[in-house]
Amino acid sequence: MYIVNSWYVAATSEELKDKPLGRTICEQEIVFFRNSSGVVAAVEDFCPHRGLPLSLGKVEGDVLVCGYHGLCMGQSGETVSMPKQQVHNFPCNRTYPVIEKAGFIWVWPGDFEKANIDQLPELHWADNPDWAYGGGVYHVAADYRLMIDNLMDLSHENYVHSSSIGQKEIDEQPVHTKLEGDQVITSRFMESVEAPPFWKMAMRQKGLDDNAIVDRWQICRFQAPSQVMVDVGVALAGNGGFDADLSVKAYAVIVDFITPETPDSHWYFWGLARTWGVADSVMTSIIKEGQGEIFQEDMDILERQQLSLSANPKRRLLSLDIDAGGAMSRRLIQKHIKKEQTE
Amino acid sequence: MYIVNSWYVAATSEELKDKPLGRTICEQEIVFFRNSSGVVAAVEDFCPHRGLPLSLGKVEGDVLVCGYHGLCMGQSGETVSMPKQQVHNFPCNRTYPVIEKAGFIWVWPGDFEKANIDQLPELHWADNPDWAYGGGVYHVAADYRLMIDNLMDLSHENYVHSSSIGQKEIDEQPVHTKLEGDQVITSRFMESVEAPPFWKMAMRQKGLDDNAIVDRWQICRFQAPSQVMVDVGVALAGNGGFDADLSVKAYAVIVDFITPETPDSHWYFWGLARTWGVADSVMTSIIKEGQGEIFQEDMDILERQQLSLSANPKRRLLSLDIDAGGAMSRRLIQKHIKKEQTE
Amino acid sequence: MYIVNSWYVAATSEELKDKPLGRTICEQEIVFFRNSSGVVAAVEDFCPHRGLPLSLGKVEGDVLVCGYHGLCMGQSGETVSMPKQQVHNFPCNRTYPVIEKAGFIWVWPGDFEKANIDQLPELHWADNPDWAYGGGVYHVAADYRLMIDNLMDLSHENYVHSSSIGQKEIDEQPVHTKLEGDQVITSRFMESVEAPPFWKMAMRQKGLDDNAIVDRWQICRFQAPSQVMVDVGVALAGNGGFDADLSVKAYAVIVDFITPETPDSHWYFWGLARTWGVADSVMTSIIKEGQGEIFQEDMDILERQQLSLSANPKRRLLSLDIDAGGAMSRRLIQKHIKKEQTE
Repeated sequence: MYIVNSWYVAATSEELKDKPLGRTICEQEIVFFRNSSGVVAAVEDFCPHRGLPLSLGKVEGDVLVCGYHGLCMGQSGETVSMPKQQVHNFPCNRTYPVIEKAGFIWVWPGDFEKANIDQLPELHWADNPDWAYGGGVYHVAADYRLMIDNLMDLSHENYVHSSSIGQKEIDEQPVHTKLEGDQVITSRFMESVEAPPFWKMAMRQKGLDDNAIVDRWQICRFQAPSQVMVDVGVALAGNGGFDADLSVKAYAVIVDFITPETPDSHWYFWGLARTWGVADSVMTSIIKEGQGEIFQEDMDILERQQLSLSANPKRRLLSLDIDAGGAMSRRLIQKHIKKEQTE
Repeated sequence: MYIVNSWYVAATSEELKDKPLGRTICEQEIVFFRNSSGVVAAVEDFCPHRGLPLSLGKVEGDVLVCGYHGLCMGQSGETVSMPKQQVHNFPCNRTYPVIEKAGFIWVWPGDFEKANIDQLPELHWADNPDWAYGGGVYHVAADYRLMIDNLMDLSHENYVHSSSIGQKEIDEQPVHTKLEGDQVITSRFMESVEAPPFWKMAMRQKGLDDNAIVDRWQICRFQAPSQVMVDVGVALAGNGGFDADLSVKAYAVIVDFITPETPDSHWYFWGLARTWGVADSVMTSIIKEGQGEIFQEDMDILERQQLSLSANPKRRLLSLDIDAGGAMSRRLIQKHIKKEQTE
Repeated sequence: MYIVNSWYVAATSEELKDKPLGRTICEQEIVFFRNSSGVVAAVEDFCPHRGLPLSLGKVEGDVLVCGYHGLCMGQSGETVSMPKQQVHNFPCNRTYPVIEKAGFIWVWPGDFEKANIDQLPELHWADNPDWAYGGGVYHVAADYRLMIDNLMDLSHENYVHSSSIGQKEIDEQPVHTKLEGDQVITSRFMESVEAPPFWKMAMRQKGLDDNAIVDRWQICRFQAPSQVMVDVGVALAGNGGFDADLSVKAYAVIVDFITPETPDSHWYFWGLARTWGVADSVMTSIIKEGQGEIFQEDMDILERQQLSLSANPKRRLLSLDIDAGGAMSRRLIQKHIKKEQTE
């Protein structure tokens, strides 16, 4: 079950060029394509003629031409034309509210008329010259909520990512979890520690002494329907940590949009928005590659976890304090789903 | 559901050499093998001893020797012998009427006693010195009727095969479909057009000017249980088209035998019988290779269409005039199936 | 259905080093690991925290550390510790009686309190300086009882292994099958025959004339829950065959432990214990490689047989005298299962 009256990331802007892109979002098969002005349309991915996915076709001007017999599907789901055919009474395909913003294609898989552009999440780092962003997309064969659990409990870093971002102090510091409006926030602060490899690199890039003792923070913010933004960083110790002046800290936001595909799979859009070396595109590539490797480790864990849970449907799991972030996020999702069903 | 009291192509003659061949026809697992005289037998592909498919064994003289413990299966489904065993009361395997003709192995998957050699289709081009034939076989993961639809509506050529046999006039000319006896015939005539690449090649091979304006025809003939013969060709314009004298036309028959394997898969025997350069075996190879590539494009479409239809079982498809050939063929199949069930 | 109150081989000793090993035995997912003294533990392969298989973790001292959040699982199924967590009321994982003996890890998948070390099979060739052993393990996608059938009827050697151990006299000699206590014994004796390739090699290695006429024997011994030991060998003809003096015979035991994984798959531990050239480890490797190839031929047959039987669930198989060994073994298994259910 998913929240459907909400915006999900369907693709990155760079994934959608001149060819149509078929993608399943919340169990709905949707084809995305750009019209002649580059504006994105989202239509049911099924040719009303013989059922071929329209995403196998090609874009011509403002229409999507089916790859089998040339039916021309318009941006509003109407059949615009077909060779030698009267198409005025062809059934319309469902369309989906879709919008491009901040480098992502956003789709609303629920009721069309409820779509509200004001509900698009605020991404303060996007289109902001003080920030640089790099990221990618993975297909993960696991329930999207397992990814939310993963991101709302970073204590796994010591075990899954021990060689890059793990450090023993993560296990030593308790987390605090709270519901703040429509956000679940779970945070961990590590004071006066040595920076782990990734953050040493960031400090060097920033021109700070990478051997200096630092304060480190992780503030995970879940927001419905399915995004997790994590404030992460280190500051020279004793300067206020997360609140320290930007000159003495390396600060970034881990960006995670988690889009359900089927009950057992999702699309994972991951990235890092950072405040240092923002003009250095080589650094962006290097960080993206490293982050891609780290998140690959998560994918492997999640897919094995999914297989294990599917094979043991009756087993109860534990819910510890470190799990509070994931548990509270799931309850928030559930609350929204219930609300949608009664509206 | 399939017509079963009818002949289907099970294999090409060249597929069946000295080794047994296991193939599923209308959901029945059958092993084909040649006896010492080269005559083909067709027996249930299941060893009555321990259930190994007999097609994993080997042929010795007139029997098929099981690859596990050496049970010898005869051409009539009887166990002929087995080391140290009395076999007279072994249960018999089902056998199938089978016949080799025109380069194909034909099998009758229904009631043995109803098999009638007179029902084998007439193939006027086979064993005829005025014609040359080349072809192949594909396994296609799609309902066999999707292939019939495909072949009875060639308007897809412009979209699926745009670089070889498509041309815009296909879309411009309407088709005419009729039931003639036990054949569904759907035809399209394009007058005074430029020949597409394949037919330019044929005209050159024939010694005709490949830049000449031509009349082109496509006459698709479906016949139960599951074959489509398509008269195709071009003639120098104004000479009567299909009826023109052979000296001014390049004329061929696209040969398609479509044999159901399971509800979602079939064996597709395709080929081309042509009237020009019939002694030129190099040309036969070149045409066969090109046709194989074209039909590979169809396979990809059909397999994706099958996945889409399976995922959307409740969606209704359109039935346009271009679909009449496929629709009428399906009704003819259905009529035969009903008749079989009431007999 | 399986006998569960019994010892099964779960792994070879050399498969289990410093990393945990996850393996499904009789449909139960179990993780095996060695503590700091090298003693093996067997625990349910499921982390009580978030369900990741524990076998993806690592061993530290006497505990298994989960690869996701560091839960430490003890050898008795108890959670020993977890970073920052009180673990005293965590639910315990199921544990399994497990013991290492004769180069194998043995597990008891049934009731813990019924486990009885005296029920471990006697392996007279193990840890015996007069014998050499080499073997391996295969995963086979077939009901474990199909492997028992295979090993209790060696008449398949002429068809499946014709180039190595088959010979026509196998088919010519009848087998004798009997139940002796809790063993099913099926034997075949071939007198005054030429040795097949494998045994010619053994005779040469032993210093015997490999062209000599021999007496050959095959005595297959099935024992519950699922092992088959086969006495095999050749002796210079007229010296008593199996009972001949060791100086005139080449004698070995084919070792087969067949451990059910799921209803349609099993782990097959195969090997050969031999009495000649016991100090020659090169010979051990060569024999092991050859045996591996022979047993690979069996695997292929069994997996195809399983597919065929699964596709034809209603077909009855024959039960001939050569099948008596397998049939009697199956009845013995069934008797034990019934007894377990009523106890």
